[in-house]
Amino acid sequence: MSQATSTQIQLAARPTGWPTAETFRTVEVTYGDLEPGQVRVANEYVSVDPYMRGRMNDVKSYVPPFALDETMTGGAVGRVVESASDDVPVGALVLHQYGWRDVVQEDAGGFQVLPEIPGVPSSLYLGILGMTGLTAYVGLTTIADLHEGDTVFVSGAAGAVGTAVGQIARLLGAGRVIGSAGSAEKVELLTSRYGYDAAFNYKDGPVREQLREVTPDGVDVFFDNVGGDHLEAALDRMNTGGRIALCGAISQYNDTERTPGPDNLANAITRGLTLRGFTLGGYLDHAPRFRELMTGWFSEEKIAYDETVVDGIEKAPQAFLDMMSGGNVGKMLVRTGA
Amino acid sequence: MSQATSTQIQLAARPTGWPTAETFRTVEVTYGDLEPGQVRVANEYVSVDPYMRGRMNDVKSYVPPFALDETMTGGAVGRVVESASDDVPVGALVLHQYGWRDVVQEDAGGFQVLPEIPGVPSSLYLGILGMTGLTAYVGLTTIADLHEGDTVFVSGAAGAVGTAVGQIARLLGAGRVIGSAGSAEKVELLTSRYGYDAAFNYKDGPVREQLREVTPDGVDVFFDNVGGDHLEAALDRMNTGGRIALCGAISQYNDTERTPGPDNLANAITRGLTLRGFTLGGYLDHAPRFRELMTGWFSEEKIAYDETVVDGIEKAPQAFLDMMSGGNVGKMLVRTGA
Repeated sequence: MSQATSTQIQLAARPTGWPTAETFRTVEVTYGDLEPGQVRVANEYVSVDPYMRGRMNDVKSYVPPFALDETMTGGAVGRVVESASDDVPVGALVLHQYGWRDVVQEDAGGFQVLPEIPGVPSSLYLGILGMTGLTAYVGLTTIADLHEGDTVFVSGAAGAVGTAVGQIARLLGAGRVIGSAGSAEKVELLTSRYGYDAAFNYKDGPVREQLREVTPDGVDVFFDNVGGDHLEAALDRMNTGGRIALCGAISQYNDTERTPGPDNLANAITRGLTLRGFTLGGYLDHAPRFRELMTGWFSEEKIAYDETVVDGIEKAPQAFLDMMSGGNVGKMLVRTGA
Repeated sequence: MSQATSTQIQLAARPTGWPTAETFRTVEVTYGDLEPGQVRVANEYVSVDPYMRGRMNDVKSYVPPFALDETMTGGAVGRVVESASDDVPVGALVLHQYGWRDVVQEDAGGFQVLPEIPGVPSSLYLGILGMTGLTAYVGLTTIADLHEGDTVFVSGAAGAVGTAVGQIARLLGAGRVIGSAGSAEKVELLTSRYGYDAAFNYKDGPVREQLREVTPDGVDVFFDNVGGDHLEAALDRMNTGGRIALCGAISQYNDTERTPGPDNLANAITRGLTLRGFTLGGYLDHAPRFRELMTGWFSEEKIAYDETVVDGIEKAPQAFLDMMSGGNVGKMLVRTGA
């Protein structure tokens, strides 16, 4: 038993528009000896995710907003270094939601012991084997009702969720898979590494025109991470009976004024389209089936992934901002190295 | 056997914005003796419907556009006055899609013989017993997945579809039913005659504010006939897991420029909403079940209806325009009296 120092990032102020240096605060917390039932975990990786921007606002949402002057919560994986619980022993690899800190000490019930699979880095439990992969899977299957042969369009396709969506779509029998991303390098990766049949750089010109060129037969399923002009472009290209999974609208998260919606939503009437929004909270019961599928695909080397890793928990705010502006390929992670 | 003269309304020009006097043309057509298999029908009622505005444009849609310089097609009921077909005898009441004319002569295959039910006027086959009622039923059940106890909001609630939606929702077990309409008289009718628990006049103030006042517990199902600010207001009030049936967007049909969509579509993500557009073409298999239900309700006197009737086929264009600007209560019909 011993004391431990933990470096933590708190929400210091609710941002208007883009978060700034004033939004976050770094603090040192000293944990005392473990209470009965507690464990102490040295984090390995901490996740930064687009949905966190919404929680920085003080608005009612599906999850409560982040509390001011408290440590940012969110997904993280680490290893148990001290334990006063039989259920979560020293040495166990654990997943938790205590977020942006290098060391955490809490009741054992807040930690999920992970299997240790040879060849599977712990970071994957924050990525394709975790919420990221599950988001892609649920969005394609339950939300967008993917059918064999469907043409699938994915916005923000080089991000953590997008790279998973393209591959899962293909593995589940999609016909053509199309993606958009924000740089020539990402576009190249989509077709060379992530199984996309075609991709375009949305900064090269109007999304509406670029999407039309690469979807001569229209789109059956649109998996939207971006919103804005991507959603508008897709609504123009959707085939009759098409399904749109509304997963994210990262293009709008830092808007300070209300942004008008797509000018062609009436296409949903004439074409019989379904737009369905989702967050993962209501679909966690799909996790076992997903993990079984994804672990299988992974062991068969059918899954590629990228991670953009930033070292040091004090860099978490910058990692978050980089991710929001598209500075990542695949999953954005903070390596804590506590 | 004899000749017959028919007065018909043709589409003379595709309108930009609101249709005008130049949009339509009245012509006299002379039918000769019946060919084998043909019938001649004297129409009783001709339907004018909001969807027809979309078909006046020359754009690809779920149904082809109206042909220029041809008679406007659409629902009508009439009586067979001459017949060269055993299947459709003289005197039969028939439903057909030959539209805006007082007399029609075509192959018998284009006419559906209707049952003659005591106390059921023929006009109802264009209204609550016809496509109008079926639209309400399919939208509530198949599209919006109505559950017992749901709070239902209906825009354009005093129109043909809206008056049916409120009553069907209540008969199927909805909790609270809320409607909007465009005049004080209509609002009064909604609560006094059509089973709405609350209603408001959308011309009295911002829909967003008015809707908030009458939906303290939010909205589970929104049946949208109007689009625009109604859709935006509803998106603010939808409960988690809510369903929106996109049936019409009459507020936008005559727009000459692209209209921005709702500024709060991202609520669909955080609240897990489903927006589903539909037209009836794909759901005609629900008609038998619907007719059985609705005929039963009607005979039990559980269904109220209104019709706004204009006399004379040459008045069809004006009836259509009046309907588009809200001049009707319930179903808008042209009585041909051929």
